[in-house]
Amino acid sequence: MKLRFYYGPRSCALASHIVLEHVGADFEAVKLDLAQKQQQSPEYLAINPKGRVPALVTDRGVITETPAILLYLAQTFPDYCLAPLDDAFALAQLQSVTNWLCSTVHIAQAHFSRGYRWADDAASQAAMKAKAPQNMIDCFDWIERELLRGPWMMGEDFTIADPYLFTVGGWLAGDGVDIARFPRVAEHCQRMRELPAVQKVLPLHGL
Amino acid sequence: MKLRFYYGPRSCALASHIVLEHVGADFEAVKLDLAQKQQQSPEYLAINPKGRVPALVTDRGVITETPAILLYLAQTFPDYCLAPLDDAFALAQLQSVTNWLCSTVHIAQAHFSRGYRWADDAASQAAMKAKAPQNMIDCFDWIERELLRGPWMMGEDFTIADPYLFTVGGWLAGDGVDIARFPRVAEHCQRMRELPAVQKVLPLHGL
Repeated sequence: MKLRFYYGPRSCALASHIVLEHVGADFEAVKLDLAQKQQQSPEYLAINPKGRVPALVTDRGVITETPAILLYLAQTFPDYCLAPLDDAFALAQLQSVTNWLCSTVHIAQAHFSRGYRWADDAASQAAMKAKAPQNMIDCFDWIERELLRGPWMMGEDFTIADPYLFTVGGWLAGDGVDIARFPRVAEHCQRMRELPAVQKVLPLHGL
Repeated sequence: MKLRFYYGPRSCALASHIVLEHVGADFEAVKLDLAQKQQQSPEYLAINPKGRVPALVTDRGVITETPAILLYLAQTFPDYCLAPLDDAFALAQLQSVTNWLCSTVHIAQAHFSRGYRWADDAASQAAMKAKAPQNMIDCFDWIERELLRGPWMMGEDFTIADPYLFTVGGWLAGDGVDIARFPRVAEHCQRMRELPAVQKVLPLHGL
């Protein structure tokens, strides 16, 4: 069965979308308009009851959550060596990065525009929005200084962490943060933009 | 080298702590007093610059982030079959659960007492605290209804998702939410409490 991949433009789904393209997967990409809340439609909730993107439909069922989809693709297309599958420690280092991007950096970003998830009143949501750019700066300071080994996130090898970093770094501009303030991250972003898979996928995200 | 495991009582480190004990790992557990901010001490920041728990020190370096530590332990102690390592789809389903517990449920809980991470003023932090119990209820409604396959989280097999669910479910009482409102989760919790590893670890967390 052809894979089916549900995404919202510029969402964290971009990371998996790049990997799907990079490994030459046989997949159909289905775009959801998040502003129109298509991810909350009955049709999509039947696929992913969480009402979020991305979701990857395989012949065995649906996979959700970016770090899970990314590792699945690395395992399913081992020729592309996108994760050190046979080295538990190296894989743990990689997983530590993808999980942190998911549970800390993406969450920092989510407070910029989705504060309603965590507080009901407008003033609190505004306070979260006001603090979000500094939290993103703190995260990227740490990436710049410590996490990004170079030339790729985990060092010499391109892995699933790279499209994920690229995706999350792409949100900085919307927060009013100039990526140039993190020169190594900016260079990584440029390196990513040169990949054919990235060039093919970005227009589908309006980028 | 003996493993060294840094934890804070009742934190998400409990999940990895249970697994370390369950697989009979040769490890030394080092308790940090989070209320006294020992996780921010220069000594600990040299181990985990993020200033969070858990951290697992191995002979090759430090692993952080609960889902990464859990998968590392599953890979390192394969005889315990704590993850379907050779089945990419089944592993993705498991990873989807551990990642969601980390990036959604743990985050929902963090707004109860650590709202200062995302907003500076007391009123916003109070608004987050007020909403956190309902977010936890929503998460556990979904676990009760959909995620918890039974008897264990992923079905017939005990996996790394089980100590993680047990850990996160243990936070409900502090939010003023009675776990009995989720009968299948409560039953899972009871099943977990019968495991020797759990009985050995709980007192170290003051539980």
